[in-house]
Formats: sequence, structure tokens, C-alpha cells
Amino acid sequence: MTEVLPYIDSVPGFQVAGTAAGLRPDGKADFALIYSESDCVCAGVFTRNVMKAAPVLHGMARLEQSNEGIRAIAINTRSANACTGRRGLGDAEQTAAWVADALPVTADAVLVMSTGVIGLPLPMEGIRKGIEATHKQLGQDWEMAARAIMTTDTWPKLASVQVTTAGGARYTLAGISKGSGMIAPDMATMLAVIVTDAALTAAQTIRSLERANELSFNRIVVDGDMSTNDTAYLLANGHSGVALESATDLEQFQTALDALTRKLAQDIVRDGEGATKFVTIQVRGSQNAAEAKRAANSIARSPLFKTALFGEDANWGRAVAAAGYSGAELQPERTQLFVAAGETLPKEPLHLFENGMPTDYAEADAAAIMAADSLVFLLDCGCGGPGEATVWTCDFSHDYVSINGDYRS
Amino acid sequence: MTEVLPYIDSVPGFQVAGTAAGLRPDGKADFALIYSESDCVCAGVFTRNVMKAAPVLHGMARLEQSNEGIRAIAINTRSANACTGRRGLGDAEQTAAWVADALPVTADAVLVMSTGVIGLPLPMEGIRKGIEATHKQLGQDWEMAARAIMTTDTWPKLASVQVTTAGGARYTLAGISKGSGMIAPDMATMLAVIVTDAALTAAQTIRSLERANELSFNRIVVDGDMSTNDTAYLLANGHSGVALESATDLEQFQTALDALTRKLAQDIVRDGEGATKFVTIQVRGSQNAAEAKRAANSIARSPLFKTALFGEDANWGRAVAAAGYSGAELQPERTQLFVAAGETLPKEPLHLFENGMPTDYAEADAAAIMAADSLVFLLDCGCGGPGEATVWTCDFSHDYVSINGDYRS
Repeated sequence: MTEVLPYIDSVPGFQVAGTAAGLRPDGKADFALIYSESDCVCAGVFTRNVMKAAPVLHGMARLEQSNEGIRAIAINTRSANACTGRRGLGDAEQTAAWVADALPVTADAVLVMSTGVIGLPLPMEGIRKGIEATHKQLGQDWEMAARAIMTTDTWPKLASVQVTTAGGARYTLAGISKGSGMIAPDMATMLAVIVTDAALTAAQTIRSLERANELSFNRIVVDGDMSTNDTAYLLANGHSGVALESATDLEQFQTALDALTRKLAQDIVRDGEGATKFVTIQVRGSQNAAEAKRAANSIARSPLFKTALFGEDANWGRAVAAAGYSGAELQPERTQLFVAAGETLPKEPLHLFENGMPTDYAEADAAAIMAADSLVFLLDCGCGGPGEATVWTCDFSHDYVSINGDYRS
Repeated sequence: MTEVLPYIDSVPGFQVAGTAAGLRPDGKADFALIYSESDCVCAGVFTRNVMKAAPVLHGMARLEQSNEGIRAIAINTRSANACTGRRGLGDAEQTAAWVADALPVTADAVLVMSTGVIGLPLPMEGIRKGIEATHKQLGQDWEMAARAIMTTDTWPKLASVQVTTAGGARYTLAGISKGSGMIAPDMATMLAVIVTDAALTAAQTIRSLERANELSFNRIVVDGDMSTNDTAYLLANGHSGVALESATDLEQFQTALDALTRKLAQDIVRDGEGATKFVTIQVRGSQNAAEAKRAANSIARSPLFKTALFGEDANWGRAVAAAGYSGAELQPERTQLFVAAGETLPKEPLHLFENGMPTDYAEADAAAIMAADSLVFLLDCGCGGPGEATVWTCDFSHDYVSINGDYRS
């Protein structure tokens, strides 16, 4: 069992800082800088939204040239620098250039990430202040860095894993992330940066991040909106001297990365806008994993299902209906639905639906489960296949409406 | 211009009734009966949800045999008779049999429609009471019939059109509908029944209903959930003696049917659960209509966009982002967005976004528009194609969450 720590002590060769640069009207921390003392190999996964923000286009272009030589990432809140055209691309480049002025790196070694309002030009005066302040404060205050990338998040998201190899060598994996609206299947309005002092090849960073992303950031739904800015980066600086040479080494790294990204992704859902419930949706019995994921995502996105969760109403028909319109194959007469309190399925969850009709479960039992803070639903699509998938979501509350009715002000 | 009347005087050869049969805990009207004095040709369009409710399966099977010989439709609220397995199918058949006992028709001539909670067996005692009461009250109280099919609707939806042909003959088209949650692109949790005393062939009813449905009930979004029960029926009993023989006759009928179904569909959105805004989304410049509809539906479904509407916040980036993740083709650098108050686009709507970046519009102008009860957005996808589409939607409010957090009780 990989232990994921809810904090980051330090990661050899990496330094970070977060500051309040005046980007946010409320004066909270709003700018973060991540710096590596030596060159990193780097992989990135990005939003599939056609309307990609300038920092996404900038980062994709940089990594297309090469996955090596990355030294720093600057992250701002307030403006997403999305739908900002050529000016936005220029502002992203200017940000990288200013970081290169402040640190012993070239502009080509700097990535930028932005989150906030779409269509608002990057407030460049604040960006400059943020770089000036953070480059002087670089150190190991990871919580401050995690805090400085928050938008509507209510708490900072950071975690780490310590790995000891079979040969006794040690390295660290650590990451920060932010949500917490526009969280859709297939990435989200989320930013995540994961760093490690393990020594990876470019191909290893790319493959391991893509696999971890598919089972973590691609499996969370807050509101079903896919943002213009979603990005996760993995940086490896090799300071530990530990290379991943054997299949065992690689599998150990992947297990640690999977656990870390799952934690960072789940925390985004736990802190989803207005969320009062943490809900795990498991689907099985599909012909393949893609079909299962489609059904699970449809349930997780359903406003009717999500408001019933908020109301603690065991209106399970809405989950079955959402799977039914997902486009995934279901055998109505063989579909089954179970529910339980908690984050993992117990041996005997409450059986709600089978053979195309409700079981004779007691309404009081269902009501008691729905009152829990964490719920797990299991839908069997009845197709008898090996396909299964798990996604995590939250409920839709009054606060979600309040937060998003009034976000820009 | 076809005038759509917001009431129904009478339709020759048709009789209706609505009653409170005790299905609803609040004692409101909950059961409706529609009866034709002679055989009707009938077309139906149904939900594409895989988990189809028993009345949907029953009706589809009946019309597969023949589109002729329909005499009555019984409609109940409270239970959707969905996810109820074989028992549900038996209950639908029993309902039709009871109607045949009460009226001079065979069970084979009776269609049934249900709306309400999924997974709740049909309360058969109430169904019998409903049939007993309504068959004695058959007449022209269309408003009572429309009222008796309401669930979370706050007002009854009914409308009619009087048509005078070039030769001076007259016939009537009339319809009732209900919403008002689970309203998704491609039908909705909606039921609609349209009747006419024109004399149509079976092929004419099918073709005209399918075309009208595509431009009305398939173009409305309340919450993006597609129900298990969505059904619209068109019944023609020929009492006027007016047959549709020429292309002109057919086009005149289609125009009237299109206007009637558009009104019934728009009214579902106007009365959407918790809705405070009526919002028209127009998309143009796509390669084809399907692409345009996909982009429009994605905007209409976006919780972030809908909460911004509720908050009267001109956070237009959320509309562009939702189109961006729709899967429809967009040219980011050529995409444009406009907004105006009202239900149709004026000559000079406010230009918000072009060339990949915001225009220099005045925030006060945008704010003034967002404060209106009705809004129209126009998105040009920038692909230069002839494809366009219009969908209608509403905002997401606190009341939507309240209504759906507590629906079953």
C-alpha cells in the first residue's frame, strides 16, 4: 500500500514560493513559482477544449519541441488568459521572459499556467510583481504555493509520496493541484504540477503521466464543464540519482504516481464548488472500459442526480436514467444498482434495482445511506463484459449556484 | 404569420378531461384522458434513453403494428412507470384495458403516458379512480387536461392554431404539453399530445411530427437530463373532412404544426424548474446543422453558463468554452459571440468576442442586457459553413436545486 502524505516536506532540487501579487481583488495569495535547480524532463497533459488558453498553447508548443530542459513554472490566478487572442500569447511569452530575467534560466525553460476568468487579459503589472516577490522567497513552503493557485477552492491541495526502491534508494514524488469548478470528465478546470527527484527519461515521464492522468484527473466531475486551461505537468530533475531501469522500478514509480494523482484529483472533488458529498460512481459489466466510463460520467454529470444527492433523496432512478441516455450499452432487464455509505464498496451494499425493477429494499435503509458524507454507487450495465470504470463526483448545492452566479465580481 | 392561440376552444371529434385521482400527495389534478369519437391515425416520437419506461415501450409496440385505429390516451402523473420491469408493462396494459371498459373502444385503441418518479410502481387504485372520474367528465376543458398532466410545472401548457385553406376549408390543431425538469436536447421529460381534425394519412402524421419535433421538443434544454418517458403524439381524426392533398396543403399544415410545437416546447423552457430567464442560443457558421446544434446544446447544458445567467453576470467566456468542448468544429481565431435582450436577434446585437479576443464592448452595456428576462446569444463558429441551429434554454437557479433536492417527498 502506497502511503500518500497530505503535505510536502521537501523535494531535493526543487524550490517553490507563493505570494499575494494583487491579482485577486480580495488580496489573497494569487501567484506561485516552481523552480528546479537543474534541468527537468517534463510531460504535460492538456485540455481537449478547442478554445485552448494561451498558456496551454504556449506549453504545448514548448513540449512539442522537446520534453527536456524545463526549469520553472509560473502560475497565476484571476485571469485564465483564455479567449485573449494574440495578446494573450504575447503575455504568456512575456511572463516567461520575466521569469528568465529573475532566475538563472532562459525563457525557453519556463512554462506558464493560468486560471481564473475567461476573456480577461492577463494583468501584467501584477504578474511582474508576483515574479519579483516569489523569486526572492523560493524555498520549501509548498503549502503557500498550493494556496497561491487556488480560485474558488477553499483549502490548498498538496500531497507527497516517499518511495524506497528494492535496492534501498529513495526518491520523492510531490504535487499540488487546484479545482474547483469547470471540473469535467477528461480533465477539468484544474491545474496540477507534480515534481520528482527521480531520474526519468522523457518517454517515461510522458507514459507515466498519461496513464496516471487517465485514472485520476480524467475521472473527476464537478459540473461537467471542461475548461480552456486544464493542464497537468510532471517534472523530474533526477536529483536523487535513482533511475527507473527495471520493470519493477517503473511499476513502483507508476503506483506512487497513480496514488498521488488520485489523491490530488479526489481532493478537487472533495472541495468542489458548494460540494457537501463525496460520491464514487463505479460501473461494471460493460463490454469495455470506455463504455463503462461513459455511463459513469453521464451519472456523475446529471444535474437531477446531483441535486438528489444534495437533498439526500434516494432517487436512484435518476442514476439509472442518466446511464440510459449516456450512449453506453445497457441491458435494461439485467441492469443492477447498489449503494453504500463510504468511499469504497463494502461486501454487501444495499441492492436497489435488479431485473428491470426495484428490489424490496427498505426506504429507511436507503435514507440512512444517503445521509452519509461519502457515498458509493455501483451500476452493473448487465452486458456481462469485463469493462469497468470508477469516477468521483460531488453533489449540486445552493452554494454551487451562488458561487457561479457571482464568480467574476 | 401563423397565429398560435394560448388556449384551446374545441377540436371537433375530440373530448378531454382532467381530474384529481389521488395520485399526488398534494391533492392536485393528476390524471387526464383524451378521447376521439372516431379512429385516429397517430404518430409518436419517443425518448432515445435506453431505459425506456413501460408506457413508452407499450406505445412504440402499438404504433409498430399500425399507425391507425387510436381512440384514446390516458395520462397519469406521480409515477413514471419507469424501471418497473414486467410489472410496469402489465400495469400499462391494465390501464388501457380499464379505459376500454369505460369507453366504447378496444384496449388496442388506447395509448398510455406516465410522468413522475422513476422506480415507483403505478398506483393502480388511483389509476382506476382517474379513469372512472374522467370518462364521465369528457368535454372541452382542455385547460383542466393540461393542468392534470403537470408535475413540477407551475402553469398548464396548451395552445391551438386555426387553419383556413386556400379553398376556404377550416381545421384546428391543438396541443397540451408538460415539462419541466429532465429537459434535455433530444426530447426531454416532457409529454405532449397534439390533436387535429384534419384528415391525414399515416405517413403524413409521421413525417410532419418528426419534422416538427426536431425543431421544437428536440431543441430545448432545461437541465440536460434525458428522461425515460419523453413522448409526443400527434392524432388526426379527420372530422373536418379536410385532406392534405397538395404540396401547399401539406406545407400549410406543417407550418401550423411547427408553430404549435415550438410554442409548446418554448413554454416548457419558460416554466423550467426554477427558471428566471428564457434564453435563445443561435449558432451559425458551422459546416452543417448537426454541428451547429451540438455547439448550441453544449452551451445550453453548461452549468457554469446557466448559473452565470442566473447571476446576470456577462461571463460570456463560459459560452465560448462550452462550445469549445462540445466536439463541434470551431475556428478559435474566427469565432464570434453576440448577445441581446429579447427573444429574437436585433440588427445590432452587442458584439462580445471576435478574432479570438474580447471586443472593446462596455461592461455596463453587457450588464444591462444580462438583466433582461429574455436573452439571445449568437455564436458564429467561424467555419464559414451554412450550418445553423437554434435551441432554447433557461438558467440554473437556487430553486432548481431546491425543487430537485426534494422531488419525491
